[in-house]
Formats: sequence, structure tokens, C-alpha cells
Amino acid sequence: MTDWVFDFVHGDKDSKDLLGGKGANLAEMTRLGLPVPPGFTITTEACRAYLADGVEPSALRVQVTMALRRLENQLGRRLGDVVDPLLVSVRSGAKFSMPGMMETVLNVGLNDYSVAGLAEAANDKRFAWDSYRRLLQMFGRTVLGVDPEVFDHAFSALKDGRSDTDLSADDLREVVQRFKDLIVEHAGREFPQDPREQLDMSMRAVFDSWNTPRARIYRRRERIPHDLGTAVNVCAMVFGNLGETSGTGVCFTRDPASGRCGVYGDYLPNAQGEDVVAGTRTPLALDEFDKLDPTSSQQLRTAMRRLETHYRDLCDIEFTVERGKLWLLQTRVGKRTPAAAFRIAAQLVDEQLITLDEALSRVTGQQFVQLMFPQFDPKAERTLVTTGLAASPGAAAGRAVFDSAAAVEWAARGEPVILVRRETNPDDLEGMIAAAGVLTARGGKTSHAAVVARGMGRTCVCGAEELDVDPVARKARAGELSFAEGDRIAIDGSTGAVYLGEIAVVDSPVSRYLAEGLDVAMAEADEETGELVRAVDRLLTHADEVRRLRVRANADSGEDARRARALGAEGIGLCRTEHMFLGDRRGLIEKVILAETPDERDTALSMLLPVQRADFLELLTEMAGLPVTIRLLDPPLHEFLPDRAELLVKVARAEERGESSAVDSKLLAAVERLHESNPMLGLRGVRLGLVVPGLFKLQVRAVAEATAELRAKGVEACPEIMVPLVGSAMELHLIRQEIVEVVAEVAAEQGVELTFPIGTMIELPRAALTADRIAEEAEFFSFGTNDLTQTTWGFSRDDVEAAFFATYLDKGVFTVSPFETLDEIGVGQLIEIAVERGRGKRPDLHLGVCGEHGGDPVSVHFFHKVGLDYVSCSAFRVPVARLEAGRAAIGSVRG
Amino acid sequence: MTDWVFDFVHGDKDSKDLLGGKGANLAEMTRLGLPVPPGFTITTEACRAYLADGVEPSALRVQVTMALRRLENQLGRRLGDVVDPLLVSVRSGAKFSMPGMMETVLNVGLNDYSVAGLAEAANDKRFAWDSYRRLLQMFGRTVLGVDPEVFDHAFSALKDGRSDTDLSADDLREVVQRFKDLIVEHAGREFPQDPREQLDMSMRAVFDSWNTPRARIYRRRERIPHDLGTAVNVCAMVFGNLGETSGTGVCFTRDPASGRCGVYGDYLPNAQGEDVVAGTRTPLALDEFDKLDPTSSQQLRTAMRRLETHYRDLCDIEFTVERGKLWLLQTRVGKRTPAAAFRIAAQLVDEQLITLDEALSRVTGQQFVQLMFPQFDPKAERTLVTTGLAASPGAAAGRAVFDSAAAVEWAARGEPVILVRRETNPDDLEGMIAAAGVLTARGGKTSHAAVVARGMGRTCVCGAEELDVDPVARKARAGELSFAEGDRIAIDGSTGAVYLGEIAVVDSPVSRYLAEGLDVAMAEADEETGELVRAVDRLLTHADEVRRLRVRANADSGEDARRARALGAEGIGLCRTEHMFLGDRRGLIEKVILAETPDERDTALSMLLPVQRADFLELLTEMAGLPVTIRLLDPPLHEFLPDRAELLVKVARAEERGESSAVDSKLLAAVERLHESNPMLGLRGVRLGLVVPGLFKLQVRAVAEATAELRAKGVEACPEIMVPLVGSAMELHLIRQEIVEVVAEVAAEQGVELTFPIGTMIELPRAALTADRIAEEAEFFSFGTNDLTQTTWGFSRDDVEAAFFATYLDKGVFTVSPFETLDEIGVGQLIEIAVERGRGKRPDLHLGVCGEHGGDPVSVHFFHKVGLDYVSCSAFRVPVARLEAGRAAIGSVRG
Repeated sequence: MTDWVFDFVHGDKDSKDLLGGKGANLAEMTRLGLPVPPGFTITTEACRAYLADGVEPSALRVQVTMALRRLENQLGRRLGDVVDPLLVSVRSGAKFSMPGMMETVLNVGLNDYSVAGLAEAANDKRFAWDSYRRLLQMFGRTVLGVDPEVFDHAFSALKDGRSDTDLSADDLREVVQRFKDLIVEHAGREFPQDPREQLDMSMRAVFDSWNTPRARIYRRRERIPHDLGTAVNVCAMVFGNLGETSGTGVCFTRDPASGRCGVYGDYLPNAQGEDVVAGTRTPLALDEFDKLDPTSSQQLRTAMRRLETHYRDLCDIEFTVERGKLWLLQTRVGKRTPAAAFRIAAQLVDEQLITLDEALSRVTGQQFVQLMFPQFDPKAERTLVTTGLAASPGAAAGRAVFDSAAAVEWAARGEPVILVRRETNPDDLEGMIAAAGVLTARGGKTSHAAVVARGMGRTCVCGAEELDVDPVARKARAGELSFAEGDRIAIDGSTGAVYLGEIAVVDSPVSRYLAEGLDVAMAEADEETGELVRAVDRLLTHADEVRRLRVRANADSGEDARRARALGAEGIGLCRTEHMFLGDRRGLIEKVILAETPDERDTALSMLLPVQRADFLELLTEMAGLPVTIRLLDPPLHEFLPDRAELLVKVARAEERGESSAVDSKLLAAVERLHESNPMLGLRGVRLGLVVPGLFKLQVRAVAEATAELRAKGVEACPEIMVPLVGSAMELHLIRQEIVEVVAEVAAEQGVELTFPIGTMIELPRAALTADRIAEEAEFFSFGTNDLTQTTWGFSRDDVEAAFFATYLDKGVFTVSPFETLDEIGVGQLIEIAVERGRGKRPDLHLGVCGEHGGDPVSVHFFHKVGLDYVSCSAFRVPVARLEAGRAAIGSVRG
Repeated sequence: MTDWVFDFVHGDKDSKDLLGGKGANLAEMTRLGLPVPPGFTITTEACRAYLADGVEPSALRVQVTMALRRLENQLGRRLGDVVDPLLVSVRSGAKFSMPGMMETVLNVGLNDYSVAGLAEAANDKRFAWDSYRRLLQMFGRTVLGVDPEVFDHAFSALKDGRSDTDLSADDLREVVQRFKDLIVEHAGREFPQDPREQLDMSMRAVFDSWNTPRARIYRRRERIPHDLGTAVNVCAMVFGNLGETSGTGVCFTRDPASGRCGVYGDYLPNAQGEDVVAGTRTPLALDEFDKLDPTSSQQLRTAMRRLETHYRDLCDIEFTVERGKLWLLQTRVGKRTPAAAFRIAAQLVDEQLITLDEALSRVTGQQFVQLMFPQFDPKAERTLVTTGLAASPGAAAGRAVFDSAAAVEWAARGEPVILVRRETNPDDLEGMIAAAGVLTARGGKTSHAAVVARGMGRTCVCGAEELDVDPVARKARAGELSFAEGDRIAIDGSTGAVYLGEIAVVDSPVSRYLAEGLDVAMAEADEETGELVRAVDRLLTHADEVRRLRVRANADSGEDARRARALGAEGIGLCRTEHMFLGDRRGLIEKVILAETPDERDTALSMLLPVQRADFLELLTEMAGLPVTIRLLDPPLHEFLPDRAELLVKVARAEERGESSAVDSKLLAAVERLHESNPMLGLRGVRLGLVVPGLFKLQVRAVAEATAELRAKGVEACPEIMVPLVGSAMELHLIRQEIVEVVAEVAAEQGVELTFPIGTMIELPRAALTADRIAEEAEFFSFGTNDLTQTTWGFSRDDVEAAFFATYLDKGVFTVSPFETLDEIGVGQLIEIAVERGRGKRPDLHLGVCGEHGGDPVSVHFFHKVGLDYVSCSAFRVPVARLEAGRAAIGSVRG
């Protein structure tokens, strides 16, 4: 026969599947001999059976009866007895803690008769009636579904301005009567006087709460299976509200906010748990508790040490003192801030409680990211304007500007700026580069602004919908507050807050450490900060020691490369050469595009050559000794020309005014020629190389000449040429031939040996599916997971966000944007196929990833698992990727 | 030891891998005892060894010596002897006939000495010197690589206006000397006098010609492996130019043009093969040959019968008569026209030479298509205006119109029209439907115009670049010729020709048969046509009997459905509901899109309901008893609104003139709201269903109501609801719930039972990769191979064509458009994955395809192989798909 019920003496902290988290920890504490009130746990299995059949298993009733009997015999009291009654708490306890579920019913067992027994046993009538009042209120709300407002309202009316403690036993008896009436009125039934019926109904209510819509939505988002069920813990009541020698509290074995070593907690004399939550009275700190009740306090400190040594981690404990006797009601491994996570992990290593591997698995890349953002000077004055979405974390302050040009202009004068737009598009890129932060009125967390800002490590608040942005008048308004170009504003990318005023922003100590090294950071740090920085250094160093994945950066300029190298990048995984054609170079590439004869085009290309060569000289010099993957031109050419619709309108307006311009007409003709209905699916990447003669050759020549020049000087330049958007081996074969020829030409001209790896992006499903063929032509693959996600799902990043991303999150189609965390089920399969087939054909094939996902903490684990050689990500993500690569290598939980 | 050389008496017609096609057939004829001049074949294996090592295998030289010795002994003459020399021809012969390879060197063995021996043996000095002249010319050109112009030019100069036959032996001796000098001059070496050296050099030249660029390109295009190599046939020379009792000819066992039963051929007395090719003299028909040389002719007829009975197919034979003795030099299964293919296949069945299965495997869908196109009345007068690309075959004549509206207007008056556009876009769809043919100045064979026209079976000539189309003035011009709206023009979609003038177009007899049945077609047919129609009927009927694949049609209206059913469609595989929102319905859907409140939207939707219901009533009635797959709305909504750029320009112009319009502004706002940078990857398909409340519900309700109404009347309506663009099982799960609810609602309202299959398109890589999950929510899959091709390759059909399709064909990346014939290597893999995983989860999952590829003769074989249940294609492709499905079932060669 199945055991549906376990006393707390059975099971341990690893029985969470069956007993839930709370039940498992109660059993563990009991096993350790800590003072836990006795009780039993009804298993998750019982819950599953109940939910499947709509009724509890018949054996369950008997088993609860027997468990109750054992409890009663142990304590020598009976549930709901008229003399010294046993009362119990009924609490839910799933494997994972989960908002939206019924939590607790206290004082089960009280009724119109046992209330007198309690009064006599406690020698306190007021306490007994107050306990009954609490039962009615909790039971009414959570079991019978009465709106809590109903009770609150009636209670307030009866108190008539008095505080709870001013109420007499008689007052409370009156409240009890009123609450019973309200239950009849609102729940359509009497409050059950039978103690066992109270218990059974509470248990069923816990079971049912597993399937509330809020709980279901939460599980879907957190990818928790729907079929786990919850356990129910039934525990003998102990009371912290039996006078001044009683009380209740919460404590932590270390400070969960700062990570400081030592014990922290609150104690509220003469109170029950819910009073602590209500916050009407100020609790005492633990050292005040020491003075108030040295015995209990000493017992508590001993228990805390015991638990921390046992759990080998920060513990979070709920306790109650009943007339001088300490009881532990709950414990769990405690939540903590990112800084605390790093400090505590390092402390526990020092205390020889855990190994460095374990310490590494206790911190996450997500936490690490939080430590790297700049911070507002906490003393600065500020006015909140509005709140948008926290799209890219950090704190940024500066002058408000309303277009890209103004951003560049103010920034050139040395003024930090915040770029404020309704929404951004690729034309805003230069402005976003120049700005300290980006604020948009529209778009969600995967809008262009959000994605690009995250990619660049720029702070971003987006979708601040209250904000009315007027780019023409160069001002913005939200309600009564407004600001104009040049006004000082600040945005907090971790909260979404938008402020008016001059607020200083300071680098975080961790980012000082990352950028400038341990010594510099330590020189400036106080003791606490110093401990944090040392902890980060220790864990990151360990991650570097254990990880198999190399970490490269995506960088397009010498400056990017320098920063990336400082942050630990072991090469450049993606240099986007198109970024070298922006700004004042735009004119040069425009000439190539507008060329009307092959001669004109060749002339235009030859003007680009020295410029590109200089770019590569700088980049390869900065990364001397490390690989630099240079991607040949990828985007459609029309991206280098003006926007078609804008130009059409401009020409039409000029025509209406009789002021047509030959230049605009020529430009328009080119734009029309290059216009594509779906540019993402058009003339891009390798297709450009095959269709536009000389374009890729120019780029390869620039790389080859730069390499030859540097190697002649003894600089170890290690370029790799990467061909984008390959869909078939033949495309790569043809371009590869061209590359090899150009490199051989340059080698002959310079009289040197010159070879370097040639590889391809894998960013189309077809490339992944035919990876065996493509591997014949490629020495390396780099997965372009952005494009691969777009084509595998058949939606573009920009359009998804605008049109249906929010709906898809709401409806649970996505749990997270597939552009942020790799969609392993779909896109991941293609990567696995490509890895297997590519390596099958060419065992030494070098494999990496250079999409946004390369720096995503969760996705890094996947890339480790499938056997890639490296990930490449934005420079500022490099430390995170290093940490997560280390965590992946030791098999830590993702994230 | 490897045998590199085989005498003709070894091997047979099935030894093509080793002996090449020509060698195998020579061996076969020898084996049959037919008069073949003796000789031997050097194997493809020898060629492969030579090409791999750059030198012939050492044993080859010995084996050639021995084969030559046997040949000499058999004939009693020695190669290049000064008395009665043996001469040989050296010919290439690969497994597949292949342009670009060296073909033939005749008269090998002649030199300055043996020429006298030949003169004496033939008793004809002139003949001997002419033979030597021919050897020098062929050897110089093909073995030594001298430009043929060099010889032609010198020969002309020496002839000085005389014909070949006017030249005396001395003249020819002079030509020989001149040619020898030219060889020294241009090849840098003497013509080799050693007969064996001539033979070896010729053999090596054949081997080397396997790798000419032209041969390589041809093989890449035809997907012939590069490592097959070619055989070399060395054969004793016989001479058709030894006077009036000699001659040479070509014959066929049946008429390869019409398929008429009987023997056909040409005979040229006193000539060698190359004289027949040159075409300077008119050859005799076979019955004239009967009179001229009854003995040889009778022998030839006997041989032809023998060969046809043996090969059980039309044979194509080359022969020579040397002084009254018949020799067969070559035979192969002959090429034929489509009509001949069908007639001959049926004839051979009647003659009990082949089975019906074999007959079916002898015709192809491609040939069948050719028989279905309308034809120009051959007697009509015409003026050629220009020639474009033959984009969609057939003959169409009518009034020129220059926009969609005019096409609809003229067509409504009963005038057939040709729609003439620079290029077409989706706005031209109604015009294309109304037109008999489409002519564009721009775009290639996969442009919008070409693809859509092929899909609808409309004749189309595209990319007629000479044509200057002026849509505003409503006229077009090419050089001196021009035409205006209303002028009569005609286009030939099989040749690309564009004509001026009134040319009658008549239905082909085969299409009369397909549309109206055998009796109608036979009533009108003459004897020849009648035989063709009967042959088609017989083979198509047999295909229907043997095929496993069902064939459905893509149809969006009752009229489409009626036509499809007449052509044998066994259901509708794709009803595109968006086509129901075009024309005068556009206003209704526009109201839905522009609705500003949920109420407004609901009102607009409710106006669409009766319209949609009526559509489905008609469609389901026409297809009573057969399944009708209705796809819910797929395209982005902005397709129903005006073009954004045009509207922007219109509004800007109005602004400049101070004439702004509120209506246009509102429309523009909606267009801007719906604007997407890559609409193909945007808010489409199931995403629309999830984002726009009520839209899919409306469509499902219309289907359900129509079905209930018809079933009540006893009409067997069998709809299937298909959800487009699904990428994850959750999307389908959510929409499926909605569909099931609506159907249940309607069933309850009408008091009937109402269920029908719900399925999905598989048109995204992710859908294929997660087909196991999706199959839990779908009763059927229909592969949308157009979109699947787009996303797998990452290019859109429209943009591919505009930008790089031509280059890709040229460079061999494509051998055919992946939008025409399924890319089995890439896209095909996803289909196989989806079939396997889908059926793995749900064994009774129904599987079909509804992309363009469903009607492609080659692709149908793939769909059969992977186990689909049906293909669905344009109505006019249905007979082709039926034929190919039958051919696939009996394992015929594709296509």
C-alpha cells in the first residue's frame, strides 16, 4: 500500500520530490535533533492522486487519522479537545517555492468549544479568542474563498480606531461572532466546527491551489512541470503570542544583503508570524534578543551554526519562542543579493565548508552581470519622471538628446548624453554608440533599442509609454514633468526608472576590477568592497582554470579589441566589417554601389583598400598573438544608402515645389534597384560576394596586406576569414577559391608565406543540414545564432518584437525571447546536427558561436554541452561568459 | 591483372559503366551478329587511372598492342601499312552522352607512306589524299588543339571557289602539305607519322577531354559524377565515300518527331558521316535507298527490326555502305518528341514488346506538360516584336492591356487580353487571373510574374528587356515596333516570342481530352491525333491504377474546384482564404484592420461572416465527397492595405499642395503601424490568429456553418482546417482550442454533430524539427514547401530572382530553381525529419504537400519516396502529378 503520509522523523532534505521543500527541511531538522514541533507531511503523490481523481485516495483518510493519533499521543493532547486542545498549522510545500499557491492556515482545531480549553490551558482568554479570530480569517479567505477585504473591513469597524492590543477578550469574542456571520453570508456555509473537517478542508484547499491560474502561469514561465503537485505539512502549533516570554522571528546565518559574515535576524516578542509580516511593530535585532532571552537566543545561535555547517550554505530560518522554549518552524537555503552570493561562496571556501568548484556553482552569470553595472551616487537628489521597462541594466546620466546627430555632437563636446527616441532603428546606431544610455517610449525588451543596447552594454530603458517624445521640438513630457534637449536626466536600466536632475554615476568596484585589475580595484576599496572584489577574482580565476570553452569577443575596432582583451577575451570571434563602412566612410561604399561601369566600381573599391587595411592593421595589432575572425561584408547594400520611403517623399516634395535634383534622382534609382521586399532574405553575405565582383577580394586583400606588413615587423597577426550566410557548399567553394587566390597574390607580391584559416558562419538551416558538405570547404564554423533563430522560426527580430512578442510571452509560447536565450529545442537541434556532421567530415573542425547568445549565461551551458571550442560575445559580456563556461565545465545548474 | 581493353565481341548493352554507351552498344550489336566493323574499346577504368596518375597504366600499352594485333590478324591488314593499310576511327564514349568532349578522329593510320597504299587498295588516289586531308584536319583540331578556322581558311583559299568534289588528287595533296605546315606553325610540332603514335595521342586526347571546362560545367549541372571517366572506341574504318556503291546514313525505327509507326532515315551516297552533318548535299529518304541499293537496304531494314525487337524501343542507327557492303557504326535508344514518346510507348505495348508499366516509365511529366499547352494556328500571319524568356509555356493571344484594372475590364467584355507590365507584383493578381497571358519587360524565370503565371497555368513571357513599357501612356515599344492598349498581340511561352497581329490559338487535343473526356476529344481528332489521345488516356489510366499518392488541387473558388475535379483532383489540398478577401471584398477586411475598438472590429468581422460562409458553401458543394483543406488567413495584414511608399508620397504631395486628407492620414497611420521591415518574417499565419482576436474564429465559424448547412441537405461536405506558419506546438495548441470551441458552438447552435480534422502547415524549419510535439496537436501535416524553401535557404522567392538567381545558375550553385524543383539535399531533409517524427508520435498522421513543388514532375518522386499521402498542386498540373505519381510507384526514373 502506498504511504501517503510521513511523520517529520522520516525523510531528509533530499526528499523534496515527495515531501516538498518545506517538508523535506522539517524532516532534516528533526533528524538533526533540532527543536521542531512534531507533525507530519502529506506527500506530493497524494496531491497528484487527488488532482487526477478529484477526490483523495481512500487510504489517505486512514493514514492521516493514524498520523494525527501518533501526534496526539506524543503530545498528550487531542486535536480540538475542550481541554488543552492540540492545534495544528496546515501549510503547502511544493518542490519549488511558487507564488500563487495557498500558503498557510494556523490554529486548525479551534472551535466554539476548544477555544475555552485553549483559554484555560494558556491561562489567557484574550489569546484564545484572538487565535480563533485568526483561524476564521485565514480559513475564510484561503479555504472558503471569501474576499479578505470583507474581514479587514469588519475588523476595522469593530476596532473603531483602537489597536489590536487594545482589544479585550470580549471584544475579540464579538469579532469571532461577526466573522462567523460573514462566512455564512459570503461563503454560503457555516464555519466547520469539526476539527478534523477543518483539517481535511485545509488540505484539499492546498491541493486545489496547485492549479490556480497564477500558479499555472508561473510554472509555465519557469518551466516547472505541471504534474509535480504539492505536499501539505501539518504541524503542532506553537505560539509566540503567549506573553512577553514568547515571540517569533526570522534569521539568516549570514547577511543576505551584503554577504557579511555573522548572523542576522529579527525578533518580535509576543507575536505570531503574520504580525512580523504586517510590519506594524518594529522587531528587535538579534543582539537585543540576546539580552531579552539569553537562553533561547543561545539555543538559536547554536542551531544556526549547526544548520549552516550541515547545509554548507546561508540558511534562512523561521523560529518561535513559546514561553521561553525555542522552536524552529522552517529553514531553507536563503536567497541573497549578487554581492552576497560571491562573498558568501568565498567565505565558505575559506571556512573549508565547500570546495572552489562548489563555490563557483553557487554564483551565476546573471548575478555577475548585476555587479558590473555603474551605480548612481546614492546621495544625489532626483525626481522620478516615469518608469519604463528595465531593458539593459546599469545607471546612466547625461544631457537629453533627441536624435543621433545631436548625440554625436554633444558627446564630441565631452558631454555624456542620453538618447531619447520614440523607438530606435539602425540609423540611430551612431547616436547609440555616442550615448551613455538610451530611452525609448515604445518597444519591449526585445525591441531594436533594447537588443542593440544590451549588445553594446549601454544602459537602456524602453517602452516608457507615458513619455511623449517630440523629436522635432526636441523635448519630451510625462504628465506634469518635461525636459528638453540639453536638460540633465538619468535612467536606471535595472529598474526602468527615469529621473530628472544631475545624478553622479560611478563605476562599480567589480567593473573597475575587470577593466583595470585587482590591484587598482583593491587600492580604492573599503573592507567590504575589497572582500567582494577578492571573491569575484577568486571565482573568476577558478572558472578560467576549469573551463574548456574559450571566450572571444565581438569587436569591430582597435578600441573595442583593446577593451575586450582587458576583460579577458582570448581573441575576436566576430569583426563585422560593415561597421567599418559607417560614418565618414559611407561616401566610399556609396561610390561602389552607385558605380555605373566596372571601371568606376574598381576605382571606388581601390579607394576603400587603404582604409580597410588600416582598420585591420589596428585590430590585428591590438590582438597580436590571438585569433581575429574577420567576417566579409554581410548586410544588404541598400543599408548604406538613404531610406527608400524617405527619399521617395523627399523627391516627390521637391517635384511638387519644382525643385527636382539630379543627385537625388540618381540615388533614388540606385535605391530602387537595390530595394528588396524582405532584405533579411535578400542579397546579403556570400551572395554579395558572388554577385558584386571585387567586393570580397578587396576585403581579403586588405586583410592579407595588413597581415603581411605586421608579420614582417614581427607582430603575430592571426586573422581568420569568415564567409557569411552560406547555404550551400558550392557558394563557399567559389568564394574560397577567390580568397585563396587573392592571398596567394599578396604573398607573391610581398614575397612571404601567407596562409590563414578560412571558415564560414552557420546561420541558415540549410547550412546546418549540409554541414558535412560545407565542412569540406571550411576550416571553422561559427554559429550565427541570431540569423539561425530568425530563419528556423521564420520571424525577424525587429518584426517579432513590434508585432507579437508580448502576446507570445503572455500566452506562454515563449518563456523567454529566443533572441536572448537560445531555443535549444528548435535552433539547438540544428547546431547539434551541424556539429556532428561537420566534425564527422573534418575531425579538427574548429567550432564557435558569435551570435547574441554567446554571452547569455544559460546558453553558454548549451554551447559547452554540444562541444563548441569557443563562444564570442560583446566585450562587456566576456567576464560573464568566462564565469559561465567555468560553471558549465563543472556541471553547475544553468544560468 | 586489370583488363583495360575489350574487343567488341565482349560485353553488352548493360556494360555502360565500363565500356561507355557507344562501346556497350557496339558490343551488343556484335553479339547480335549484326555487321559491325571489328574493333575494341579502351575502358573508362583506364581513363580514370590515366586521369589520376597523369599517365596511362603501363599494362594499357601492351593490351592495346595485343588488341591491335588481333584486329590486324582478323582483317589481314596492318595499321598504317604501305600496302592496303588498316585505318581506324577513335571515338570517345562516356556512360552519358556529354557535350564538350572530344568526339572523333577518323582515318587514324594514314601518313605520307600509307596514303599511297590506300590509294592503291581503293584504286582511288583522290579518295586517299582526301582521307589524309580529313585526318590532318581532325587530328590537328582535336588532338593538337589548332583553331579549326586555320584549316577552314586555308582550305577555302586553296579551293578558290571550287567545291570539294572539283578538287583533284593533286589539289588535295597540296592541301595535305599546307595542313602539315599549318600544324607545325600552330601546334609547334610535326604531325606524327607513326600510326601507333597517332592512335595513342588520339586516345589521350579523348581522356583529357573529360576534364574540359565545358564538360565539367555540364556534369555539374546534370549532376553527373566527375569520376566516371570516358571509354575510347577504336574501330576499323569503313568508307562511305568510295564511289556510287558506297554511302552513309542515319535511320530511326519509328518517326521520332510524330511517333508514327515505321522506319525513317536519310542516306547520302558517296559520303562520309561528316558530310551528312555539314548538310551541303540533300540526302535521300529510305525508300529511295531501297531503289538505289535494294540489298543493303533490305539488310538495313532487317537489322532495324532486329534492334528494335532487341532493345524494345525506338532505335537511332548510324550506318555506312562500303562498295555495296552494309556496316552498322552505332546505335542507341533514340530521342523523341513528347507526342512520339506517348505514341511509341502505346504502340510497343500493342506489339507486346513492353508492359504497361514499362510504357509508363518511358514517358515523363515534363513531356506530358508539353502536350497540354494551347497552340498557335500554324497558318496565321505574325510579326515578331521581340523575344523574352520562355517563362510559362503555351500560346496566348489577345488585346494588350497595361494594368490590372484594364485587364479585368477588357476581359469582362469577353475580350482575351495579354497583361503587359514592366514587372508584376501581388497587386497585379486580379489582372493576371483575367488575362490569357502575361508579358513583362523585367525579371527572370523565377520572377513574380513567371512563378504566379506557371502556378495558374497562364502563358508568360518575361524579361523581354528590349521592350520599353509605358504604363501611363498605355503603350510599349521595341525598336521600330510598338503597340498600345487594345492592339492585338500574341506571346509564345515555350519560345519567348512576342508577336503583333491576330493569331488564333487553339486548345491542344490532349488538353481537350483532359478537360472534356476521351469521347469529345476523339470525336474531333484525325487519325494521328486520335492515336496520341488514346495513348495518353491509356498511360494516364494506368498511372491512376498503380499510384499510391493521391493528387489534390490548390483551389480558392468554386470555379477552380470544378476545373480541378474535371482534371482528376481527388480533393482540395490548399484553399487560400486570403484570395477571398481580394477585389470588392478588400473594403471589408480593411474595416477589420482599421477598427479602433474591439466593438468596431467585431462589427467588421461579422460583416465578413456571410461572405466567407458563401465562399465555403460553393467550394464544399463542388468538392462534395472529397476533402477540402482550408487554410486560415496567412499573409500579413498590410497586404490588404495600399503600398506604404506610394501612400507616403501621396500624402507628402498633398501636403505640399495644402490638400491633406484625413482619410489618407488614418490609412497611413494603419499602414505605418503594420509596416514590417521583413513582412515574410513578420505578423503572419498563426501569429495573426493569436494576436488579432476573432479573426480565425470568424473563418472557422464560416466553415462550420457552411458544413452544417450542407450536411443537413445531404451534401457530403468534408472540410479540413489548416493552421499556417506554426513554429511551436504551443501555438497550434492555443489555436486548436479556439477552433474546437467554435466548432462545438456551431454544432450546439445547429443541433448537429460536427467534427473535422485540424492540422497544420509544416513550412518552418522549427516545425519540422519539432514535428513530434506538433503531431500531438495535429491530425495532418501539409508541407508548405515554398516557405520552407525560403526559410531553409534564408532567401525570399521575390528577392532571389531580382538579385542573384541568374548568377547562381551560371556558377552552378543551383542547377534548377529550388522554388521549382524541391531541394532534396536541404529542404528534403527537413521533410524526412518531420515525416519520421510526426508519424512516430501519431502513426495515422495524414501527410501531404501543397507548395509549388506538389506539381513538379521531379519532386513528386521525392514525395512518393518519403511516404506522403498526397500532393496538391495547381489544377492544370493535376494530370502531370497523376502521371508522375504512377511513375514513382513503379520506380521509374524521375522527371
